[in-house]
Amino acid sequence: MIVFDKILMTDFLAVFISFGIALLLGFIIIPILTKEKVDQTEREYIESHKKKNGTPTMGGIIFLIPMIVLGIIACSKEPSGIPVLILVIGFGLIGFLDDFLKVVLKRTDGLKAWQKFSLQFIVATIFIVFLKYYSTVSPGSIVPFNSFSFLDFSNLAVAFVFYYLCILGTVNGVNFTDGLDGLNTTVTIVVSLFLLFACRGLMQGNGSSTEIIIAITIGALFAFLMFNAYPAKIFMGDTGSLALGGFVAGIACVLQIPLFIILFGFIYLLEVVSVILQVLSFKLTGKRIFKMAPIHHHFELCGWSEVKVVAVFSIITALLCVLSYMGLMI
Amino acid sequence: MIVFDKILMTDFLAVFISFGIALLLGFIIIPILTKEKVDQTEREYIESHKKKNGTPTMGGIIFLIPMIVLGIIACSKEPSGIPVLILVIGFGLIGFLDDFLKVVLKRTDGLKAWQKFSLQFIVATIFIVFLKYYSTVSPGSIVPFNSFSFLDFSNLAVAFVFYYLCILGTVNGVNFTDGLDGLNTTVTIVVSLFLLFACRGLMQGNGSSTEIIIAITIGALFAFLMFNAYPAKIFMGDTGSLALGGFVAGIACVLQIPLFIILFGFIYLLEVVSVILQVLSFKLTGKRIFKMAPIHHHFELCGWSEVKVVAVFSIITALLCVLSYMGLMI
Repeated sequence: MIVFDKILMTDFLAVFISFGIALLLGFIIIPILTKEKVDQTEREYIESHKKKNGTPTMGGIIFLIPMIVLGIIACSKEPSGIPVLILVIGFGLIGFLDDFLKVVLKRTDGLKAWQKFSLQFIVATIFIVFLKYYSTVSPGSIVPFNSFSFLDFSNLAVAFVFYYLCILGTVNGVNFTDGLDGLNTTVTIVVSLFLLFACRGLMQGNGSSTEIIIAITIGALFAFLMFNAYPAKIFMGDTGSLALGGFVAGIACVLQIPLFIILFGFIYLLEVVSVILQVLSFKLTGKRIFKMAPIHHHFELCGWSEVKVVAVFSIITALLCVLSYMGLMI
Repeated sequence: MIVFDKILMTDFLAVFISFGIALLLGFIIIPILTKEKVDQTEREYIESHKKKNGTPTMGGIIFLIPMIVLGIIACSKEPSGIPVLILVIGFGLIGFLDDFLKVVLKRTDGLKAWQKFSLQFIVATIFIVFLKYYSTVSPGSIVPFNSFSFLDFSNLAVAFVFYYLCILGTVNGVNFTDGLDGLNTTVTIVVSLFLLFACRGLMQGNGSSTEIIIAITIGALFAFLMFNAYPAKIFMGDTGSLALGGFVAGIACVLQIPLFIILFGFIYLLEVVSVILQVLSFKLTGKRIFKMAPIHHHFELCGWSEVKVVAVFSIITALLCVLSYMGLMI
């Protein structure tokens, strides 16, 4: 037998309960969204994506509802996960607003860039203030592969700048990663598994609600993937991808490992950087670096199947998660 | 930082080294197998599978070579993994022989059923004798969800019957699971992750070569999945699926958790049982239970995409692995 661990057992139960709720929600919500035509005309120029027209979006609510409801229950017992919930709910709302404008009110572009960014900025600020003044987390980051040393954000300005970069970068990275059936879901499941082990290793029994929120997310994403795997019956929309970005950034900050996002969240980073480079290059030189940005479309246009991109990106993420765990031990 | 764990660090290195070797082998071997037309005409009656004709098979050698080479190195330091290697090599050879007859010598049916079964029987016997008389493992199984009690196979006849059932059942189950792009690979990666944690919890620093063999397998399967994901560039063939069956059964026996295979290996079981039921039903009543067996084809004929079957089967396996771990703690 293996030594009984109460928090681990709670994690496991959380996975099952969250999976069950999300699965049920999927069966209820997807037919409604499909019937109400909550879909977004794909503006992609990739031929094989035209069949995606008509697939409903905003599916993120399928995993967001268990994440928020069960997350609040977990935080009512132990408060360490509250900052994470702030980011999940805040970014989830921004995403929902954007999706709602786009697909329900049919305003093609949803929120304008400056509106979206301002809202993100506000949510990030609330999170940082809460983390700094109302939680027991001391702002900073463990240094990868030099894990005895701790980068302290004692300077308030440094703390804010760093956290803004980390949160907004991650959230928009996760947002851009959402573009192929199952891509964001699979990559984020792998990342969440890493975060679970990191949490167990770093907090060692403390911070149980943080740990349980990760378990809840894993269960809910498993259920969502059932519907979101190629060919997707539903997309998560900005509702889902912004909230997941908030989840990843929030957990990393609470665990004091934001610097590790560069490693385990490399795919997110790659996606957002590919967009930035593409736009910059086109504006400056008139030439495009990638066949299409975000970079997953580039690989598709290179002849990779959608599923191959998902497999390769997820396996790279898994290896980088292993590397990150090594970076926490050395 | 997380407390440094030497065996875990070795596991991680094993994942990377094994991944690197298998990836390299893939790039070398796949063009050769494709050029030499080491392919098997699909006898499937599913329309969408016709495009699979021409995809080379015997790809199992891509992950078998690192598993065997690195596995022997690991066992030379600490011997607990030797029984596992016996099964992997033994069943790998049977599979290779079968594939060789089928695709190189073009004998349509490969080994005859009785030949295949006799060879499997011989390999299983060698394993059981080795386990009982030349290893420190005391034959038996922890009882799921009653993990304080131990089912002792002190009676030699009981031990043999039980192990035969367990090994031949698992190996043929894993063999039948191999029938859709990435299915067997993905399900077995999930199972291997569970086996790694089970090994760490149960052997606690002892049995390091057993643990490292699991890590090696995970790394090698990650690399293989890069090529095997839909649409597959290569199939693992019986070479791969029989060897992986040997791996799963071998680890479960060494960890003294063979009874748990029913849980975490439920998909393997489902596949083999679906075939048995289909054949029995057709012989006895003239009617078929499933639209097609093994059961993954049944779901395809129900309209599920290949990738959806893989996703659903893998997620079910992941949940059952969580359940199995709970069964080891309670």
